[in-house]
Amino acid sequence: MQQDNQLCDIGFIGLGVMGKNLTLNLADNDYRIACFDLDQTKIDAIIAQDEKERTGDSPRVVGCHSYTELLAKLKKPCLIVLSVPAGEPVDHVCHHLIDAGIGADDIVVDTGNSLWTDSVEREKQYKGKFIFFSTAVSGGEVGARFGPSLMPSGDPYAWTRIKPVWEAVAAKVDPASGKPIESNVPGKPVKEGEPCAAYIGPVGAGHYVKMVHNGIEYADMQLICEAYQIMRDGLGMAASEIAATFREWNAGLLNSYLIEISAEVLDKVDEETGQPLVDLILDKAGQKGTGLWTAVSALQVGSPAQTITQAVFARSISSLKSERTKAADVLHGPAKVTLSDEQKQRAVQNLHDALYCSKICAYAQGFQLMAMASKEQGWKLDFAQIAKIWRAGCIIRAVFLQSITQAYEQNDNLANLLLDPFFASQIQSFQGNWRHAVADATLMGIPCAAMSSALNYYDSYRCAVLPANLLQGQRDYFGAHTFERLDKPQGKKFHVEWSQPGQPQVAIKR
Amino acid sequence: MQQDNQLCDIGFIGLGVMGKNLTLNLADNDYRIACFDLDQTKIDAIIAQDEKERTGDSPRVVGCHSYTELLAKLKKPCLIVLSVPAGEPVDHVCHHLIDAGIGADDIVVDTGNSLWTDSVEREKQYKGKFIFFSTAVSGGEVGARFGPSLMPSGDPYAWTRIKPVWEAVAAKVDPASGKPIESNVPGKPVKEGEPCAAYIGPVGAGHYVKMVHNGIEYADMQLICEAYQIMRDGLGMAASEIAATFREWNAGLLNSYLIEISAEVLDKVDEETGQPLVDLILDKAGQKGTGLWTAVSALQVGSPAQTITQAVFARSISSLKSERTKAADVLHGPAKVTLSDEQKQRAVQNLHDALYCSKICAYAQGFQLMAMASKEQGWKLDFAQIAKIWRAGCIIRAVFLQSITQAYEQNDNLANLLLDPFFASQIQSFQGNWRHAVADATLMGIPCAAMSSALNYYDSYRCAVLPANLLQGQRDYFGAHTFERLDKPQGKKFHVEWSQPGQPQVAIKR
Repeated sequence: MQQDNQLCDIGFIGLGVMGKNLTLNLADNDYRIACFDLDQTKIDAIIAQDEKERTGDSPRVVGCHSYTELLAKLKKPCLIVLSVPAGEPVDHVCHHLIDAGIGADDIVVDTGNSLWTDSVEREKQYKGKFIFFSTAVSGGEVGARFGPSLMPSGDPYAWTRIKPVWEAVAAKVDPASGKPIESNVPGKPVKEGEPCAAYIGPVGAGHYVKMVHNGIEYADMQLICEAYQIMRDGLGMAASEIAATFREWNAGLLNSYLIEISAEVLDKVDEETGQPLVDLILDKAGQKGTGLWTAVSALQVGSPAQTITQAVFARSISSLKSERTKAADVLHGPAKVTLSDEQKQRAVQNLHDALYCSKICAYAQGFQLMAMASKEQGWKLDFAQIAKIWRAGCIIRAVFLQSITQAYEQNDNLANLLLDPFFASQIQSFQGNWRHAVADATLMGIPCAAMSSALNYYDSYRCAVLPANLLQGQRDYFGAHTFERLDKPQGKKFHVEWSQPGQPQVAIKR
Repeated sequence: MQQDNQLCDIGFIGLGVMGKNLTLNLADNDYRIACFDLDQTKIDAIIAQDEKERTGDSPRVVGCHSYTELLAKLKKPCLIVLSVPAGEPVDHVCHHLIDAGIGADDIVVDTGNSLWTDSVEREKQYKGKFIFFSTAVSGGEVGARFGPSLMPSGDPYAWTRIKPVWEAVAAKVDPASGKPIESNVPGKPVKEGEPCAAYIGPVGAGHYVKMVHNGIEYADMQLICEAYQIMRDGLGMAASEIAATFREWNAGLLNSYLIEISAEVLDKVDEETGQPLVDLILDKAGQKGTGLWTAVSALQVGSPAQTITQAVFARSISSLKSERTKAADVLHGPAKVTLSDEQKQRAVQNLHDALYCSKICAYAQGFQLMAMASKEQGWKLDFAQIAKIWRAGCIIRAVFLQSITQAYEQNDNLANLLLDPFFASQIQSFQGNWRHAVADATLMGIPCAAMSSALNYYDSYRCAVLPANLLQGQRDYFGAHTFERLDKPQGKKFHVEWSQPGQPQVAIKR
């Protein structure tokens, strides 16, 4: 029997890019970790990495050769973190842990990109065998290593046990400015500031919120790409010139991780050819599914997340590269126009404002979707809290999220981000340029699906009378689907024999 | 024992609006029908209706009081048609038929709005008990009565039995003009012309195709509504003036059932107030789910059906009436501009062309989605055939579908409807006005989400180099997702350490 002081604090299963970095992050925060992976070389690699990075003598990371050994090496009740691919592998590990004798009060935390409904099912499925808890992680490999944004959800008792661990490893924010406090030095985690880890709600809620985070990320990236394409194809700007523009934008309202890295990507020179690397990258976008899940959920919940959805479709259409190349020869656009320097400058300013306003709409859509899902599921999500933990660590981190935090702190019943006085006035100031950016791209024949869907979202949301009255008339005409009347009590349904003029409409079932 | 000549040809279960009318349509075509419904008043109603309509002495419709009685009254092997709500009720009836002793070679045809995957499951589930066959029906109540468009799918042997029945009751088309041959007179079905009923493929394929039909229908209706709103709110036209415009359009390229009924809806005067009825209808659109299913399938298959999806979201946003009314007070658009008569005329022409081009794109998206799903499912759908059976009977019937039929007859390998020489040249001619219509609405602050998404679909599809190169750079930056290079062999993946300038990119796993 090993002595208790030799036992590890946390078990970690799955040492891929994310798992390895999360483990090293935990180790930096003075947790002793027992690790397991089906691939022995990954265990060897993390042990070697730990040896290289640690300042003390004793290993912070211990390798295990089986689930049984892992359980034996842990303090009881055990806290085990999984970082394995979403889907079947999660259940595979859970079943092995049961076979290895995991206890009913042990906690298993899934940190993969699981579908939120799977987490809900798993909590039920493993009840009595162990406590299944879910924590969604954002921030990519660097975030995992030096401070991710964490969205934990599940059993509140388990949360009290997990809380100090997640708060230690999470990214930190300076509460006054809302900006990340950064340290990318191994062994020197950030100890001060507000941690980007907050309890989201019942199991699954964290993964749902992370899914919407990714949906917003899809929209944000696509909007940046559209601004890039308009500068590239419409204004004839070179990659370095566009990089400089993004860097300038990053100093202002648009300050964000995604704008920052876009500038860096555009500035990268290919060593082999001396050309901007971005010009050599194939324009076929991959996707892992979370954007798609967000769009599907938006459709199912009935929340108009159209900019997020357009971003998903933009990736689909990008993947049809060979069809597009052929179509480009057959389908022509308008004649090219040459712009004066002044017109170009003006167009760049328009694009800046368009990107900013569109971004507000994409976030408004994401928060609206979470609100509708929260209502449906009874989660009682805290949107100020969610905006707070997205201020650092995650991919969509931006100064902007401080304003969203404030909007929900001022009014936790805010029906839509667009109705917050700050955001309403921002859009009011910039909408003229936004409209011109979209109209110009439309006339030039350059696609801007996400940007224009954002503007359409704004114009639809603020429209007291949409043309759905005609639509209800059409539906009643061919399918007797009935309609309501503005001048009659709400809920009273009417049907008309449309094709026989002169016949009065009749009120039917209330 | 009853004599064989007293037995009925077809059993019919479910006598709602659609079921009742399909039954009367079958009766008009000299089939003798045994009917059953859980609601006795519906059985009584159809018997009364038959008495009123029939020319001969003997009843064409026979009421039954149980599933057992229904089976006993049918010629063997039985052919039974269901028209019950999608979902659980279909299985409920199937189980009762099994209990009542249905035979393994009897055929049950589901004509409800079932989800296509449910049909696939049901064929498996009922194998050996009876033959489950699916037929999707479009055309609303009038279509069901006088000639719907029918999309049958399932066991090919069962199809040989069903074919003459469906070809008799289906809508008919004049093959030369592609126009419907209409007779809305009970007892006088159309006997000449091409029937709008064709075998679609394995079970479920018919309901899938019908689902996409409805998705296109959503887009078509939304596009018409956007044209209406721009005329109403942007050009200040009254309902009757817009009706006249639609009637004019209906005489040309846009000739279709939906434009025709839109004009009729707009022309209808409310007897009570003397106002145009459309102005009194509440602008909250309902939906039954098939548009949503189409959008979800498009996301899952990876087919960019963005205009169809926008139409679904337009209905969602319309349903937020009270939020919109509040938002209208807070969120302002651009200042109103007054147009001269000449500008107004010009704007109406632009709208016509925008509607036409957008419609082509919506149909292109629908056919692209069916093609991708067909490939995934191995259905080998025949698109010329599908366009043919949509020329009459269904809600999206239009002259336009004759051109689609011809496009696929000329090239059954057409990758996209936009690449057909006729449609390519049509869009080429009209795209200038299309762009102006969208740009003008954008500047005026009137939403046109579907129209602009259609234009963005066109501009993306014909774009040889989309900005997804930057997106792949971003993804590789934060998630090491890798990218391909234009100047290297296809499939070779690269990863770069973006943030450390000077480090060369390395080729990784092929």
